[in-house]
Amino acid sequence: MKSVIISIGDELLIGQTINTNAAWLGQRLTNLGIKVVEIYTISDDYDAIHHALFEAEKTADLIIITGGLGPTKDDITKKALAEYFETELVLNEEALENVRRIFAEKKHPLLDVNVKQAEVLANSEVLINELGTAPGMWIEKDNKYFIALPGVPHEMKNLFDKKVELKIKNRLPLPFRYQRIIHTIGIGESALAEKLYSWETRLRNDGLLLAYLPSPGIVKLRISIEGDSDSNISELKDIVEKYVSELQEIIPNYIFGYDNDTIESKIGELLQKNQATLATAESCTGGNLAHKITSVAGSSKYYKGTVVSYANEVKTQVLGVDINDLKEHGAVSQQVVEQMAKGVKNLLKTDFAIATSGIAGPDGGTAEKPVGTVWIAAASKDKVMSKKFRFSTDRMLNIELASIMGMEMLRRLILNL
Amino acid sequence: MKSVIISIGDELLIGQTINTNAAWLGQRLTNLGIKVVEIYTISDDYDAIHHALFEAEKTADLIIITGGLGPTKDDITKKALAEYFETELVLNEEALENVRRIFAEKKHPLLDVNVKQAEVLANSEVLINELGTAPGMWIEKDNKYFIALPGVPHEMKNLFDKKVELKIKNRLPLPFRYQRIIHTIGIGESALAEKLYSWETRLRNDGLLLAYLPSPGIVKLRISIEGDSDSNISELKDIVEKYVSELQEIIPNYIFGYDNDTIESKIGELLQKNQATLATAESCTGGNLAHKITSVAGSSKYYKGTVVSYANEVKTQVLGVDINDLKEHGAVSQQVVEQMAKGVKNLLKTDFAIATSGIAGPDGGTAEKPVGTVWIAAASKDKVMSKKFRFSTDRMLNIELASIMGMEMLRRLILNL
Repeated sequence: MKSVIISIGDELLIGQTINTNAAWLGQRLTNLGIKVVEIYTISDDYDAIHHALFEAEKTADLIIITGGLGPTKDDITKKALAEYFETELVLNEEALENVRRIFAEKKHPLLDVNVKQAEVLANSEVLINELGTAPGMWIEKDNKYFIALPGVPHEMKNLFDKKVELKIKNRLPLPFRYQRIIHTIGIGESALAEKLYSWETRLRNDGLLLAYLPSPGIVKLRISIEGDSDSNISELKDIVEKYVSELQEIIPNYIFGYDNDTIESKIGELLQKNQATLATAESCTGGNLAHKITSVAGSSKYYKGTVVSYANEVKTQVLGVDINDLKEHGAVSQQVVEQMAKGVKNLLKTDFAIATSGIAGPDGGTAEKPVGTVWIAAASKDKVMSKKFRFSTDRMLNIELASIMGMEMLRRLILNL
Repeated sequence: MKSVIISIGDELLIGQTINTNAAWLGQRLTNLGIKVVEIYTISDDYDAIHHALFEAEKTADLIIITGGLGPTKDDITKKALAEYFETELVLNEEALENVRRIFAEKKHPLLDVNVKQAEVLANSEVLINELGTAPGMWIEKDNKYFIALPGVPHEMKNLFDKKVELKIKNRLPLPFRYQRIIHTIGIGESALAEKLYSWETRLRNDGLLLAYLPSPGIVKLRISIEGDSDSNISELKDIVEKYVSELQEIIPNYIFGYDNDTIESKIGELLQKNQATLATAESCTGGNLAHKITSVAGSSKYYKGTVVSYANEVKTQVLGVDINDLKEHGAVSQQVVEQMAKGVKNLLKTDFAIATSGIAGPDGGTAEKPVGTVWIAAASKDKVMSKKFRFSTDRMLNIELASIMGMEMLRRLILNL
């Protein structure tokens, strides 16, 4: 089962908007066992739309189109689609009702241009978009499936999750597919591949697929297996789970989670399980660590807050770092980062704390402490762990890596690893 | 002058990596007056590469290819390119020297596979990549220009900035193009368009181009003009500048910056100009405000830190918020957010402070204070401004909007707007 994603929008071509929709859809389709063979990003223009549809249809069974359905642009994209499918646009009552509801809630008057939002292709099944005025459309033609979705990310995602995914599962001849994702941290892709060499060889010989998915600080392993209607499904699952279990024995300390886990959700889980609270003290991460922790819904249950101490006097006066240690060892030192962790734990009265102090760059590096040098500490009631890292020369990457490794140090402290 | 970007990499198709390279290149090319007509994201595979090049060549004069040049993948992409251009791969001495230097610096042994990194198309001009082992290549064929760049974002960007841009300017028949970008904040796209109606009509009648580029909280206006070799260049510039000046009179308070400014760099500038310092107290923004402020290199000169007070006791004990006000009005209230701003200003001994308190969602909303309700305050030595906002139902969007509007309130406070 092959798929092509067509992203429509000039804002994508001029780089005003980063195409996050295509990546999100790529993940979802891959997880369904559908291979995304190409992504076309094109202009909201007749010829471009027709050419992309024509090309996509040659290789793919499923074509997902996002964007171009908004109130200012619907003329072109919907008309171009209608022409391509040799059909017409008709007003859909249910979609109009949805548009009316949204305008009533916002207390905005309904204009003619807004009514046009409820027009859909006559040959389509309408996918009502609860979060916006542009409905999605599902079109079948010559055993090919076309799905047009709005371009606003949260509308597109909601529509896919609530309506499209199930329809795909019901209508399309998907292969049976079972996969697990194993999240590792603190080990690079090549070092990991070396450790897993013989395991990976056996896995591949058993017909399983393995992908290494690296991102800053983290490498995910995706193990999957595909079968058809004749396959013994529970047998296939068992094979995958056997390799997952083996992995737990080969690299137990590097695995922090599975499937939809993230390091921030994982430390949240661990803290809640221990009925414990957390505070952070950040220098070089400048609030990014707090931002990541609080991006988890419900984090207010265990996270009390952070003190970002960009200035040295905040380190001494608010966090209680010894001014002599600061002078003698510098802000980027084991002594200071450990005192920051203990200081914020006392100040915010929590069970655990994480602290970071480093040189994010681009300036501020010295021969002894070059850009990318970061000290990180994690503290509990009776213990402080600290470690020096040497990340990169890129400011934003250093901030991200220090945030992630700070959470990892807390995980290790809580689990006594 | 038309361009197509070809992004190569399975990680882009499965959504493991978001295609930020294409957006970045789209911006750069647009700024050079080159129209990006399409972005193809394809697999690292012979047929896909050949087909994409063939299609791109039909419409574009300039084809930029990123990715697929890494050590584990170079076999396919470089070979596919060599075949397409009917040429061969040859070892380039300068590129090899660069590979050797990088391995020596990292103290890693040089393997055969790494030497292959220095192979380039025989028909190409080599673009040495100082930050990585994969060189870029510049190929000219039948008045078409092909540029192959590595996929690692900081390597690609560095190579484009240091070598590719100048070469494009020297070799390609670019139109003369002059543009200014005006950054507005605190006014939506449609309200802005309404205010600018007659100005925009005159501007378009004068042959200028205008684009509205919206992002959360901010709308950029891009005014541009194009000419050819016969044009009177300084006259064209003057026309654009005249419209920019007029804009300053029509919407003076909504404009916060020009061209490469950001709201975070702008408040940094204002603070430095006033030799003033800043602290923040964040509840619902959870560190994102601090993260944005500290993403500016050199922000340690004026930014002292943040206290993220996710817990109420941090608000009272650390920031000195009155416990009775907290009980009576709740954490998301004018009383509390103003006390948070004053409290952190005193605690960190700064001249200015910003504070946020709101309900980011998805939970925690009530009928009176639904998700998206955010109080923001900005404080100076003798003044506190505060305002209630009602953003959206999306947690991450609320965090982003509250961070941006917090900085905007500080800007207004400093400038007395």
